[in-house]
Amino acid sequence: MSRKILVLGAGKSTSYLLDYFLEKSTEENLHLTIGDLNPKNIPEHISNHRNCEVVALDIFDDTARKDLVSKAAIVVSMLPPRLHIEVAKDCIEFNNHLVTASYVSDAIMELDLEAKQKGLVFMNEIGLDPGIDHMSAMEVLDRIREKGGKMLLFESFTGGLVAPESDNNLWNYKFTWNPRNVVVAGQGGTAKFIQEGTYKYIPYHKLFRRTEFLDVENYGRFEAYANRDSLKYREAYGLTDVLTLYRGTMRRIGFSKAWNMFVQLGMTDDSYVIENSKGMSYRDFTNLFLPYSPTDSVELKLRHYLKIEQDDIMWGKLIELHIFDKNKTILQDKGTPAQILQEILEASWTLESDEKDMIVMYHKFGYELNGQKKQIDANMVVLGESQTHTAMAKTVGLPVAMATLNILNGKITTPGVQIPINKEVYEPILAELKSYNIHFKEYQVPYLGYNPDSILS
Amino acid sequence: MSRKILVLGAGKSTSYLLDYFLEKSTEENLHLTIGDLNPKNIPEHISNHRNCEVVALDIFDDTARKDLVSKAAIVVSMLPPRLHIEVAKDCIEFNNHLVTASYVSDAIMELDLEAKQKGLVFMNEIGLDPGIDHMSAMEVLDRIREKGGKMLLFESFTGGLVAPESDNNLWNYKFTWNPRNVVVAGQGGTAKFIQEGTYKYIPYHKLFRRTEFLDVENYGRFEAYANRDSLKYREAYGLTDVLTLYRGTMRRIGFSKAWNMFVQLGMTDDSYVIENSKGMSYRDFTNLFLPYSPTDSVELKLRHYLKIEQDDIMWGKLIELHIFDKNKTILQDKGTPAQILQEILEASWTLESDEKDMIVMYHKFGYELNGQKKQIDANMVVLGESQTHTAMAKTVGLPVAMATLNILNGKITTPGVQIPINKEVYEPILAELKSYNIHFKEYQVPYLGYNPDSILS
Repeated sequence: MSRKILVLGAGKSTSYLLDYFLEKSTEENLHLTIGDLNPKNIPEHISNHRNCEVVALDIFDDTARKDLVSKAAIVVSMLPPRLHIEVAKDCIEFNNHLVTASYVSDAIMELDLEAKQKGLVFMNEIGLDPGIDHMSAMEVLDRIREKGGKMLLFESFTGGLVAPESDNNLWNYKFTWNPRNVVVAGQGGTAKFIQEGTYKYIPYHKLFRRTEFLDVENYGRFEAYANRDSLKYREAYGLTDVLTLYRGTMRRIGFSKAWNMFVQLGMTDDSYVIENSKGMSYRDFTNLFLPYSPTDSVELKLRHYLKIEQDDIMWGKLIELHIFDKNKTILQDKGTPAQILQEILEASWTLESDEKDMIVMYHKFGYELNGQKKQIDANMVVLGESQTHTAMAKTVGLPVAMATLNILNGKITTPGVQIPINKEVYEPILAELKSYNIHFKEYQVPYLGYNPDSILS
Repeated sequence: MSRKILVLGAGKSTSYLLDYFLEKSTEENLHLTIGDLNPKNIPEHISNHRNCEVVALDIFDDTARKDLVSKAAIVVSMLPPRLHIEVAKDCIEFNNHLVTASYVSDAIMELDLEAKQKGLVFMNEIGLDPGIDHMSAMEVLDRIREKGGKMLLFESFTGGLVAPESDNNLWNYKFTWNPRNVVVAGQGGTAKFIQEGTYKYIPYHKLFRRTEFLDVENYGRFEAYANRDSLKYREAYGLTDVLTLYRGTMRRIGFSKAWNMFVQLGMTDDSYVIENSKGMSYRDFTNLFLPYSPTDSVELKLRHYLKIEQDDIMWGKLIELHIFDKNKTILQDKGTPAQILQEILEASWTLESDEKDMIVMYHKFGYELNGQKKQIDANMVVLGESQTHTAMAKTVGLPVAMATLNILNGKITTPGVQIPINKEVYEPILAELKSYNIHFKEYQVPYLGYNPDSILS
């Protein structure tokens, strides 16, 4: 009898995930059931596959959902994160393993003891970021520590970007994932991290002006701004004594400085609504954040307010987005500034059907071994293949799929709610990801401590 | 039989209030009862006055509080705002009028119907700001409208500052009231107002860089930054159609630009705590908000981060506060950045015993009358007389005292929860305040619309 995998949610990040299962379905004796609200969006090569069954499922229909879960051996939830918890409870009820690419929520964590008692693996954060970042970092950290090294510094950066061949706007950026996350990035608290043994704090309005540069072989220079949660995995990674701990988001050079214009204007604010936003011109929206003047243009007021000189490319970036256009109008009513800015950006920053995305990840590992201070830099670049087979779908979907099969095959056995930081998990998956051209290049570099300008003192 | 006034809370703003009642006590046949947690702090000329009784009162002792309220004819609550509600409920129970200088809370507003049914006056916001601002604005607004004028513009500004004779630091500022309100001013939402018919929004991190200048005869130039709640009294003042509506806080020139340094650094943040703040040097605190460097000084990092040039007086303002001092240490533990900044500022900005404060208020009234656009500017300056008889205590306490007596004497009769915007209230009080040298000077000026640079177009 074939082994039943249930995938809930067949959104845009699932192309590689579903292909992986079906490609392996004969040799591994797998049967795939896909439950989705709109199953007609699923490509025919999947829905027509002989080892696949597609079911229209409203996730809030408890009876239908439980019926599907009860028939499966393992469940993969690719639903929006807030919907995982009902599925997880079903998995407890019907003794299923569970795999998600999402952050462990408090609600899921509460199921840890029950999952352990029943011997169930509840694997989370096994996509790209979180996911490949955990696995690739732990692989190097464990290797250094096994040699007797002591960690001094860990920095980790990820970016979802546009591939070089499709990189054709002044921002060197297009939305390749959830645009809202980009518009509100960094909000909701002060960024906190550790540099050379002391805590450091960056308020939101300075976040995009405190970047670090990262060079990637063959791909040139990138920049990174700090994540709010740099200290989140300090204990999980075993880095409680480390001198420097910093996690960030990668962009192409110049993005953050330009994005800061929107932050300074107040256009990324998500805390209040513009009552009369529907039909408002982009120009009038921009003018909401500038002082009234009986004579001066919106352009000059903004140049003066943000101190943008005549020959600054920042200006070209604003023009490219049409924010001074009188004729382009906002569609949504009662939008927050952040929602309206997202609408304006989506009009410019959406990938065309022939354009491709790119994932970049960069780790720095500073350590002391046999009395010497050393550093390993490791980076990964993955390019998208098509509009459906994006680098994002590949790097999120493949680790999820591999973890699922490894659990099913008894290669991952440690039960409970977890993230992929154990060797049992990351070793086989990182090895298999290499065969899909997802791999890290490592470089031994001088240890300079936290030193973004790479100054040798 | 004498008429009993109960004053709850005899804090630092009550000197003029208590003196007023006692000075009038014989001719007006008043008996004053003061309920306070620490009655020994009350000056002897008050506590020993034959028409005064002082009672030690824990405001949370329901029996004792109700006993006092039940014996009074009218209650004045000078307690912290959150404590008014219990007193207000007692006033409903025992049929007392109530006077406070605080903003009307939702909880107090819920008592409106009961107060009206019982014929009780619950007068609030009758101090300085809110208080004198309401009364002085409504007096001019009503006068303009009675002549047939149509309001076009209303701007209103208040500042609690240091008197010119005591103005001896580079910030031209000292704390004369609640320091915490100064440190967190402008936080908790975007400033929203109307300029020439359009809404305008200023995010917190730009608030102190969008100031307006105000000249006051004999006192020179001031500046003002926007309050968050410029639109709060739009309906109450009858200004729903006005083209420009703006309320702000006055400071001496240059304060806001310098204060913005703390905002930019993140030192005014009140949303997280510094775990190890106790014993930390001022210098290390400052360094929390700056990037790590193995070589550069805290001074140079800050100069560079905030772009402060060598000869900029902003630098002197920072030095004056000792924020680079290695030997001055923070006393409080687990303080938020805002709490720690407050501690540092209080070490420099507290009035000496011989120093005096100053209150400044400035209104602009733009209107159209008989086809002509006109403007009245009105301003008020009140100087403190001593450490106890401050301008703040005078401008807060006297209107409260006068309202209390007018209610007692049946000159203010309209019942219910209210603020002093009716002629019945403001006319006699503004007239009486004049005899205490609290009065506005008016100037007829050209109407220029919202036009902070006063450019004639």
